[in-house]
Amino acid sequence: MIDKLIEDILEKKNPSVVGLDPTPEIMPDFLKAKYFERMGMSAAAYAGMFLEFNRAVIDAVYEIVPAVKPQIAMYERFGIPGLQAYNATCEYAQGRGLTVIGDIKRGDISSTALAYAAHLGGVIINGEHQDTWSEDAVTVNPYLGTDGIKPFLNQCDAYKKGIFILVRTSNPSSAEIQEQELADGRRLFEAVGDLTEKWGEYLIGGHGYSEVGAVVGATHREQGELLRKRMPHTFFLVPGYGAQGGKADDVAGFFDEKGLGAIISSSRGITAAYKKDPKYGEKDYAQAAADAAVRMREDLAAALNRKGITY
Amino acid sequence: MIDKLIEDILEKKNPSVVGLDPTPEIMPDFLKAKYFERMGMSAAAYAGMFLEFNRAVIDAVYEIVPAVKPQIAMYERFGIPGLQAYNATCEYAQGRGLTVIGDIKRGDISSTALAYAAHLGGVIINGEHQDTWSEDAVTVNPYLGTDGIKPFLNQCDAYKKGIFILVRTSNPSSAEIQEQELADGRRLFEAVGDLTEKWGEYLIGGHGYSEVGAVVGATHREQGELLRKRMPHTFFLVPGYGAQGGKADDVAGFFDEKGLGAIISSSRGITAAYKKDPKYGEKDYAQAAADAAVRMREDLAAALNRKGITY
Repeated sequence: MIDKLIEDILEKKNPSVVGLDPTPEIMPDFLKAKYFERMGMSAAAYAGMFLEFNRAVIDAVYEIVPAVKPQIAMYERFGIPGLQAYNATCEYAQGRGLTVIGDIKRGDISSTALAYAAHLGGVIINGEHQDTWSEDAVTVNPYLGTDGIKPFLNQCDAYKKGIFILVRTSNPSSAEIQEQELADGRRLFEAVGDLTEKWGEYLIGGHGYSEVGAVVGATHREQGELLRKRMPHTFFLVPGYGAQGGKADDVAGFFDEKGLGAIISSSRGITAAYKKDPKYGEKDYAQAAADAAVRMREDLAAALNRKGITY
Repeated sequence: MIDKLIEDILEKKNPSVVGLDPTPEIMPDFLKAKYFERMGMSAAAYAGMFLEFNRAVIDAVYEIVPAVKPQIAMYERFGIPGLQAYNATCEYAQGRGLTVIGDIKRGDISSTALAYAAHLGGVIINGEHQDTWSEDAVTVNPYLGTDGIKPFLNQCDAYKKGIFILVRTSNPSSAEIQEQELADGRRLFEAVGDLTEKWGEYLIGGHGYSEVGAVVGATHREQGELLRKRMPHTFFLVPGYGAQGGKADDVAGFFDEKGLGAIISSSRGITAAYKKDPKYGEKDYAQAAADAAVRMREDLAAALNRKGITY
């Protein structure tokens, strides 16, 4: 995962990822009307419009960004039809050459983590490998420690996939646990960061970064800069940009001197861009997403430029 | 959730829950043959046999135990058909009057946690409530702090559902993070336990326990006993009994003087019991599960008796 992601970041000169987190609120009215008429007021109707919406957004941004990050919860909320739309979204994005980072935040004890690792490695049935999901990387919760991570590492190794460990999340309450001061002087997220760097040490690719990345929120500028130095082989997946308040200059220090080491995620800032500018009608949602993705690329480039970094 | 669970524990004199964690390894050969012939070597074939297996186990144990705990990862591994079997398993168990504890270990920032909370509260479509899942309670990962928990609390309140927060998991590596010593003298799992007790304080039911429980592994006897005193209103869901090494005397101290405060989970010890005693043929798997569930009830009763506790 990591080498392809880096090469696509360099080629597209864009270290950003579009979050595909569809909600009823961001669906255009004409799509709601179409699917409600066809399928009734149902979870399946939402699933249908989510997929049409996502496909149009993917078509509009796939030459601009290197990756997409569907948030599985937004689909899981709508049960089985929702998850079918999640799967189809992942497949469609892979078909467009994008790296698909499934934001699934799974984590469990070893035998159960092995089952979740099917998101990366599929299953073996009668000696034959079959995919049951279509992600290139997934996010993983570290609360259960190494034995809950190992099955994912094995799949990363076997199938050239990646994971991003939750180290320092973007939300306000995350400090309650992640910033607990430890007796040894570290804060908990630093201890988790140290573990993450260690978990990835045997999975380092051609550009010096490992298949084991870290989630580090854009809302923690200083901590992200500290972690960048503390975790030299760990690529950061950075949520919290845009709608949650993170700005390009806040995350510029999350990058190394080549403009690598981080990929910045924006969801509503891209997919709901059509709602924020009266020049767009609701049928222009995909064009508005493409325009917003270009603006984000430019904002990040300008912030990196101010630190003397160009691609 | 919590009051019904407690009343069923008292009525059945049994504080145990059967984990429904189907794997290819525990499926009887005759079921494999039946579904592979019908559906080919496919994820859907496994999903089909998982559901038949679970229904037979549920029919065999529903008068013995108050609850079941399907581990969603075992189904999610097989993609959409697997999750359909998960949903159908939950529905079938609810139909038999069992409390269904979905072991989903979800956790995310607030807006995303709200989407996951559909596991408890369903979705509202055009002003009407629709269920998209069929659990009475779910397990939740605390790493993101209060704002990732609140949406679940709201659903517990609105729909009389429950959650169990991962406080001290049963697996060996869990100490790496959960036993980190904090600068204030607590260990991390104690800090999470304190938060859990606080999260539940406005959701306390008629028996003095709240809708917000805690996952505490049977493999941590002393810590479980300490947490029992530290968290007087928090019911414990206790994995790690049986196959992972926990014994009845290890968990007896997780209960209060009425024999409440904990429900002990066993998965393979019940569902794979037919493989461990040559008196059972593979078609006897449901009977073997019922016999194992009775033995577990007796083992727990004997251990509680040794502490002077009877129902």
